[in-house]
Order: sequence, then structure tokens, then C-alpha cells
Amino acid sequence: MIRCFSPHSFLSSAVIFPLGRNTLQSSAVCKVHSVLVFGIWVRARIAVGASSMAGLVCSKSGMEQVLLENEVQQVKLLDSVNDDFGGVIVELSEAMDLKVFASMLKASIALWRSQGKRGVWIKVPIQLVNLVEAAVKEGFWFHHAEPKYLMLAFWIPEGSHTLPANASHRVSIGAFVMNKKREVLVVQEKCGIFRGTGIWKLPTGAVDEGEDICAGAIREVKEETAIDTEFVEVLAFWQSHKSFFGKSDLFFVCMLRPLSFDIQKQESEIEDAQWMPWDDYVAQPFVQKHELSKQLVDICKAKEDETYFGFSPVPIASKLPDQKSFLYLNDRDLEGSEV
Amino acid sequence: MIRCFSPHSFLSSAVIFPLGRNTLQSSAVCKVHSVLVFGIWVRARIAVGASSMAGLVCSKSGMEQVLLENEVQQVKLLDSVNDDFGGVIVELSEAMDLKVFASMLKASIALWRSQGKRGVWIKVPIQLVNLVEAAVKEGFWFHHAEPKYLMLAFWIPEGSHTLPANASHRVSIGAFVMNKKREVLVVQEKCGIFRGTGIWKLPTGAVDEGEDICAGAIREVKEETAIDTEFVEVLAFWQSHKSFFGKSDLFFVCMLRPLSFDIQKQESEIEDAQWMPWDDYVAQPFVQKHELSKQLVDICKAKEDETYFGFSPVPIASKLPDQKSFLYLNDRDLEGSEV
Repeated sequence: MIRCFSPHSFLSSAVIFPLGRNTLQSSAVCKVHSVLVFGIWVRARIAVGASSMAGLVCSKSGMEQVLLENEVQQVKLLDSVNDDFGGVIVELSEAMDLKVFASMLKASIALWRSQGKRGVWIKVPIQLVNLVEAAVKEGFWFHHAEPKYLMLAFWIPEGSHTLPANASHRVSIGAFVMNKKREVLVVQEKCGIFRGTGIWKLPTGAVDEGEDICAGAIREVKEETAIDTEFVEVLAFWQSHKSFFGKSDLFFVCMLRPLSFDIQKQESEIEDAQWMPWDDYVAQPFVQKHELSKQLVDICKAKEDETYFGFSPVPIASKLPDQKSFLYLNDRDLEGSEV
Repeated sequence: MIRCFSPHSFLSSAVIFPLGRNTLQSSAVCKVHSVLVFGIWVRARIAVGASSMAGLVCSKSGMEQVLLENEVQQVKLLDSVNDDFGGVIVELSEAMDLKVFASMLKASIALWRSQGKRGVWIKVPIQLVNLVEAAVKEGFWFHHAEPKYLMLAFWIPEGSHTLPANASHRVSIGAFVMNKKREVLVVQEKCGIFRGTGIWKLPTGAVDEGEDICAGAIREVKEETAIDTEFVEVLAFWQSHKSFFGKSDLFFVCMLRPLSFDIQKQESEIEDAQWMPWDDYVAQPFVQKHELSKQLVDICKAKEDETYFGFSPVPIASKLPDQKSFLYLNDRDLEGSEV
């Protein structure tokens, strides 16, 4: 699936009969159309610019005349902006009566349908949560949520929607930091599955939203142990599923070079931290017993022996202003090639 | 941050005075406590087992006697299960009156607070969306949502919560598939930013939730072009931020070996598809103009010249039954080392 919407036929589920009555409103030219919406005939004034259907101006906060079962009502429309995929986005910001919202939503959907719109997004701030029920009754579903808002989605054309999926992964790092005495930086955690087990493990943590993997690894090591580091490479990674509310986890094993050596453990999360002789770390029954741990030990050892090359971050231009992204690649092999 | 909760002090925001009146209910021993909740004194019968606070049995669907401003009410508690981090999880499944739910929630929070619980999760199926408002009024916030449910979260102890963050990334792939004539498999898309540009690009797509990267790459190539492939390597990857409702994207450039050669393009998303001479692909102004495209061309060429090694997927045991996970590593270097 391409990360965009598939084309669907225009007006597949709405039938429009332009009645030809022009009215002037909010400096935009409107026409009254009869629209079949959810089995009910609705008359709505629809914005038309120089070319038919081109203008959305008069639907923005405009009053629309809707004939619903022979009853004439003035229904305000929801403010919306067009997205890049033939759909519309509504951001609710002002409190309103539930019934008023329900009417506005019905009329807005009728208009969007008549205009051949596809996906509809409504972003509801948490303080307007009382409006969510009305949207769900109209057929909206939950797309995603963040602490302060809920994003609702709706698909106007017939057939399955092609709206992009919600975020599916968390990204985590494990940090391999070794000093020149071949001692590795390890911690014991105060909580989680390793709590109280006595197991010494590499510092690990979740990469923050919007944070680069290399920056997240440096931050986690600093937070847990106060050790400053320089990022060297991604040595390996793995993906695990159903690890968190049905979501997946991408775990990057990173090598970092220490720039300081005095450990100060994080009081809130870390029971203890130390520079541990590599052989003692490897000899732990937990490390020896688990296939994955053993494989990581092999990789880290090969790296220390300078026979292994992972993916180094190379800065590249970012679409965000004044920022760099990172392309992670095998830079030894690339430099050595004849490209 | 470790991916778990930090320890907080027990009962930091609730004051409890055991009144010593024992009652027997649902085969569990309960005590009546006075609890200061949101500034209001509440008396609630709290389950106690052999050791104080150990039993949650009688709070599960039990009737609790709550004295609220001298008015005696029988308030049912919400069904809950303990999580691994000192919190509780409620899964709503049955329709109920809004006021009844609000009372149950208040009483349940009082109990959980008295028991030193930390995070509270409430999973609300979309058909019970009318209950969300009551929870938000009690201080719950949106944690995440999927099409059919909304997850609400609440933190009982004082101070900042340490609940894990919502999923932060989408995972995508780009597929480099070359045949023995040094022709590369390319497509033109019907929608998205490349629509109508005439640019020939590598097949790309989003990895489905719960899908391995290597499986996702094979699936996307098959869907878009009907070409069967075998996964070889991850050649490089990059991370971009704010790419989708504030979330990040992890894009893996993958090399796949073709196992079939007759192209049948996907009608819904692909305008055209072909095996294109590598030099023609590289010569496209779009490829030459963009730093990232040029770097990927260098990597793909180096790979074709067999001088570049990326990360190959090695099957490892998964925590899911009857499944394998994949550890992606530089297997040439690892095999060549003396480990």
C-alpha cells in the first residue's frame, strides 16, 4: 500500500441535482443542490467559484440553508480545510451545544459528499470530549489519540477507506559502552522484569517522540549513569510485536564511546550502576542462557575486536527547518567501494 | 527512562483512618476506611486479606458502602485487574447509565488510592463513547486510540506520571529489486507527491501493524508489481520526524532478489511499473538532484558490486508462540570474526 489514498469514484454515494438558483453569500457564489444523504433528501447551498465545485469559501462558517423533511433550517457548517488527499480536516476549538454540533456535522457531511470529498478528520480537544458521541453516531471512528486530543475519522466514498494507519511502533535503544580497560557500563534496574534479579544489564530506554535514535541513546546513558558518550554505530536491531497495547517495538543495539567515567546513578530508576569487566558481564547465567543475549555478546565482542561494522549515522537534510536527519548505513563498505 | 514506572511513595495523596469495623462480603474480609478524596471525605469498605491491603477480591463487582457528605449510598465498583506496575486496568464492556458510571468511577478511584495504586487504565469500546466524558471530568486523559476503542489514563500518586508513552513511529520500506540484466524494478504512483511527475521510483509502502520488516517489503513488492522476491538485506535506514500527525517515520531501504519477472501492476495505486535499466533510473533529474536519493544510489550500486554489506535478518525466538522474530545484523562481519 502506498502511504496515501487510492482514487475512488467521484460522488459514488451522493446524487446531486443542481436547481440553478444562485444566491450571494459571504462574497461567494452559491447554488442550491438537492443531495441524497443517508437516505434523506437534503437541499444545501453549495459554494461554486468560477468553475463548478471549486470554491469552499462559503462553507467556511457560512450559514447553509438545509431542507430536511420539508422543514427549513439554517444550519451553520463546520470550519474545515482541505487536505492533500481529497479530504477535509476539522479542528474543533470552541464549546458548543451538542445538538447544534450534530446538525452542523450532518450538514457539513452532506456538503463534503456533494463535493466528492473522501476522508474527513475531526480533531477534538479533550475539553470538548462531550462532542465525540455525536460524531460517532454519524459513523466516525477513533483514528488515534494523544493526551490532549482525539482524532476522529470518516470515509465518504463507498468501499473500504484508504486512510493511513495510526503509528504502529515504539523505538527503544540498548547502549553498549566500553572503556579502554574492557569494562562495560551496566546497570541494575529498580523496576521492570529485571528488578531484584541481580542481573547486570546494558542501559536501555525508549526513544522520545521526535528524537533521533543516536540522540536518544546518548540521553539514556547520561540519564541513567551520568556518563557522557559519543555515538558510534547501530550494531543490530530487532523488531518485536504485541509488546505494548498491541503495538510493536523496534530495539536498536547501539555502540557508544565513553567521554567521561565517573558514574552517578539515577536515583529514581537505577538500583546500581558500574563499569564491569566484560568477561564477568558475559559470564552471567542470564546472558549465557538466552539466544538473543548471546548473539548480542558476539556482536559486541566482534565490534571491540574491530572486525564488525554496523550502521553509522550520516547527517542528511531534513524537511524540518534548521534540522538534520540521519541516514544510518555501513560507511566503511561505502567508503571502500568504487562509487 | 526505563520502560516502566518509577517508584512513588505509597498513599502520598490519600489519608486513611481504619475504623476497625469488619464486614464479610463476597467471601472476602473488608474494613471500612475514611478516605480523603479530591477534598471530600469518603468512607469505603476496602478489601483486606490475611495481610492488610492484599485482597482485591471484594472490589471486583462488589457493592461498596460509600458515605458521601453524610448520605449513604450503595456504589458498585468497576471490575479491574492489576497490571505489573502497581496499577489497575478496567475494560468497559457493558452499557450503563452515565451517572451510575460516574459514581462507580469515583468510588473505585477512592479504593485504588487507598490501596496505593498508581496508574489507572480504562479501555472504552467505541459503542460506550458516552462514558468518556465522565472519566475526563475525574481527571482521566487520552492515552491512545484505535478504531474500536479509546484508552484513558489516570495517575493516582502525586507528581508527574511515569506511564509509558504512546506508539511514536510508523515503519516504512523502500524495495531495491534488480534482475540479472541490471534492470531495477520501478513504479509510477497514481497518488501522493510523485503523482503525475513522471518520476520512476522504487516500490515503497508502510509495514503493517505486527508485520516484520522483511515480510512487509516482500508483500509491498508483490502487491504493487506482482513480482515474487526473496529478502536479502536492510541496506540503510533513516528516521524522519513530524511526518504524520506529529509522529515519526522509520524508513528501511531493503534489497530483495527477484524470483519472478512478469510485472502486473496494481490497478488501484500504480500508474505504471517496469524493469528499468539501472543507468536510466540513476540519470533521472530527481535522483541526481536529491542528496538522499544520490546516497541511496551509491549504496545500491555498491551492493550490486558486492562491496557493501547491510543487515541481514537472522531468525530468533519470539515471545509470541509459534513465531520467530528477526535480529538484523551484519552477518558477513560476524561470520568472519573469531567469536
